[in-house]
This record gives sequence, structure tokens and C-alpha cells, in this order.
Amino acid sequence: MGKIIIVGLGPGNVDEMTPRARAAIESAEVIAGYITYIKLIPDLVSGKEIIGTAMMQEVERCKQAIDAAVAGKKVAVISSGDAGVYGMAGLVIDMILDLPVKIDFEVIGGISAVNAAAAILGAPLMHDFAVISLSDLLTSWELIKKRVRNAADGDFVIALYNPKSKRRVDNIVEVQKILLEYREKNTPVGIVTNAGRANEQKIITTLENFTAEEINMFSLVIIGNSQTYIKSGFMITPRGYEGKQ
Amino acid sequence: MGKIIIVGLGPGNVDEMTPRARAAIESAEVIAGYITYIKLIPDLVSGKEIIGTAMMQEVERCKQAIDAAVAGKKVAVISSGDAGVYGMAGLVIDMILDLPVKIDFEVIGGISAVNAAAAILGAPLMHDFAVISLSDLLTSWELIKKRVRNAADGDFVIALYNPKSKRRVDNIVEVQKILLEYREKNTPVGIVTNAGRANEQKIITTLENFTAEEINMFSLVIIGNSQTYIKSGFMITPRGYEGKQ
Repeated sequence: MGKIIIVGLGPGNVDEMTPRARAAIESAEVIAGYITYIKLIPDLVSGKEIIGTAMMQEVERCKQAIDAAVAGKKVAVISSGDAGVYGMAGLVIDMILDLPVKIDFEVIGGISAVNAAAAILGAPLMHDFAVISLSDLLTSWELIKKRVRNAADGDFVIALYNPKSKRRVDNIVEVQKILLEYREKNTPVGIVTNAGRANEQKIITTLENFTAEEINMFSLVIIGNSQTYIKSGFMITPRGYEGKQ
Repeated sequence: MGKIIIVGLGPGNVDEMTPRARAAIESAEVIAGYITYIKLIPDLVSGKEIIGTAMMQEVERCKQAIDAAVAGKKVAVISSGDAGVYGMAGLVIDMILDLPVKIDFEVIGGISAVNAAAAILGAPLMHDFAVISLSDLLTSWELIKKRVRNAADGDFVIALYNPKSKRRVDNIVEVQKILLEYREKNTPVGIVTNAGRANEQKIITTLENFTAEEINMFSLVIIGNSQTYIKSGFMITPRGYEGKQ
């Protein structure tokens, strides 16, 4: 009987992939994933059957992966970061559980992009935080903006996934304007692009000063809460509120 | 010259600790951390100098770790999960940057408790989520409740750290009441206790039915958004909203 293992690679270098994730990939006969992620681990997938599709073809990729498992193969479905955060886990599990046959599956977590970015910036996530994707492909832009307002009003540290794409360049600017209604202009903002990969870039700036030009589809943006500060080039959020605000 | 490496262990088993984290611990002469975490990795710390303190003594532990680094030693400060999420990273970095001498430091991320719990439950974090600690030691209970309301109003998936301690047993019950004002009674709730460790326990229940008795200080609680569903014992949040709600 086949099996599907849903694996998070972590940021993308093998040094930050867990032994459990690595062993799952090594033992798999078939690797399914967005081709950009497969290219991150050439040595691990060498000689294996690859189901690699371009972005936005997730459903087709899942179907092929499940077909391979039904045919008796051991399949690893890979995502970068953690497969359970804006990754493939939900779709794959749902499709497996709809099958007329029982296929074993397992989810193996990885270091999520927000955690990888935070480690590079210093310690911006030390207190309550909200993770929001700015992609309006499957969620209305109105709901995304409402969430930004809710998170801003609650003084959450805010991590923005998918802050910008080729098609979608204005959302991040609109979010910046909304946040400036709630937070000081000099609120620290950290931008990490290609975290843990070649060409890793780190920018520490402020809510007023950051620009969309510094951000691309491989960036993660972290906006500090009211207590976050910059010290010697590092972004730090304290563990609490002095005087318990 | 000494060095401080701030390391996230991941859930607590060496199979889910990254090679980068493991190498840092192996190369360190001194290990500093809450004694419960040090006990998770006996083989890795054997023979090393240990700065192990009880919980709530973080500042003292950081001071001792920094003293050892100033004295020229290589020190690993460990947290379970990710050191940057309610961990030690912020405090340690802040204290290092205040020193009159320059000490090198590095933050090495780990799989965060929320990601480890999510992988065990299925795929509850597939969409925007808020992470909130119910510990009111350094944050006012009023602000915590406000954040719960903000997150509920924004239809975030909500992950609760520190849901209960010996001293603090009623907060989770109050949060349950608040959430029931915003979400359906049958909203899926996942509770994972000792994720990735011995005695790991998983409960999938609903917002109306979960009880504080099922939760302890080693639990992480994940409350679904309006779209989250339970299927064959797994908790799944879809990647978006059909019809883009």
C-alpha cells in the first residue's frame, strides 16, 4: 500500500530541515511539489519520480500525487516552510479522506517562513502575533483589510505573507496606510527576502518609510507592535508590557 | 571571544531538531535553559556546563549565560519550540546589546509549538491565524481579552499558548465564553498536549464542548475559523473562502 507524507522543508537549506523531514524525502519514491521548491533540494530528489508543477496548479499536483499513492508508491508532497501554513497539507488531507480506499498519510512540520524571518531580524515575535496573507485570490480583499484592522487594533505584531506579486502590487501600500492609522510612524518594520536561501536580504525600517520596491514575492514582512524597538540593527519585541498596559 | 547561540529545539525530540540547531548545541561548552527543556536532550548536553534554572528565572539565567560568554565560552541558550516565540531570544539579544563589550550572537529557529500541534491535528492553520498567550503575568488580562475579541471578529484561526497553569485556570473558560459570542458552537477546536514528546495527546472537539480539564500547561489549543471543519478525526481549514466571503 502506498503512503503520502506531507513535508515542510523549512526555509530551504538542508541545514534547517529536520531529520524527520529529510528521512521522509529520502525514503519516498515520488516527490510532488511546486518546481521552485523541488529545485531547493536537488541532491535529495535525484533519481526519484518528480511530480513538479508550476504555481497555482495545486489541485492537479495533489491528484497526481494521490494517484501515485493509490498505485502503491510512497509519495512525499513538499512545501517550503511549514506545509501546514498556506501550504499543501489541507488540500492533500482533504482529498485523501475523500478516497474510496484508505491511504496512510502523515504531516511533518518544518520551520515556518515567519519563524525563519524572525530569527534573521532578531526577536520580533516575542509577543502575540497575527499572520495574514495579502493574496486576494481565494479571500476577498475586504476581509483581508478587515483582518489587518483587527490585528492593528489589538496591538498584535503582524506578519504578512505574500505581500506582493507581479499582478498584485498595491495591496501592501494600502495595508501600510491602514496601519499608519493605528500605529506610530516609527513603528519598526522588518522585511526578509529569500530567508535561509541564496540572496537572503534583510531590511529593518519603519512603518512610515518602507516602500513596496523593497518587497517581492519571496519577502516576508513583520510589523512591530507598540512596544517593538530597534536596537543596533535588530528588531526586538519585549515579552510584555511594563506596567501591564 | 565567547559567543551566544539562541537555539530553538523544536517540539522536543531530536528527530525534529534541525541539523543547524543540533550542531550549535554540540559545539557549545555551556548550555543555558529552563531545566525541563535541558532534560529533553540528555545525550546532547552530557558533559557540558549547565546553567539550568527553574521557570520564571529567565533574567538570572540570561545574566549567567552572558557572563559565561564574556568569559570566553561558547554558550547555547535553549528554548523549546522556536526561541523567538514567547522564548528567550528577545531578552538575551537585548542584554547582549547592552554590554560594554561586543559579544557575537546568532538566533537559530526551531519548529514552533503551534506548527507542531497543527501537524498533529491535520491542517488547521492553512489560513490567516492569530497566536495569543493567555498568561497575564506580563500583559494585562484586559488586553488579552481584547485581542481574543479582535481575532474572533476577524475570523482568524486562533492558537492559544499557555492556556492554563496551576495558578491560572479560569482564563481559558472566559476565552471560550468570549469566542462563543462570535463563532458557532460547533466550531472545531484542537487540543494538543506534549506535542512531539512522550505522552503526546490529541483531542479534537468543539468550541461548545471543550473543557478546561482537558488542558494543562503543556497544551496548545487551536480554534478554527468559520470555514474549519472536522473530517475523519482531522481538523482542516480551507485555503480560502468559496465565493470569496
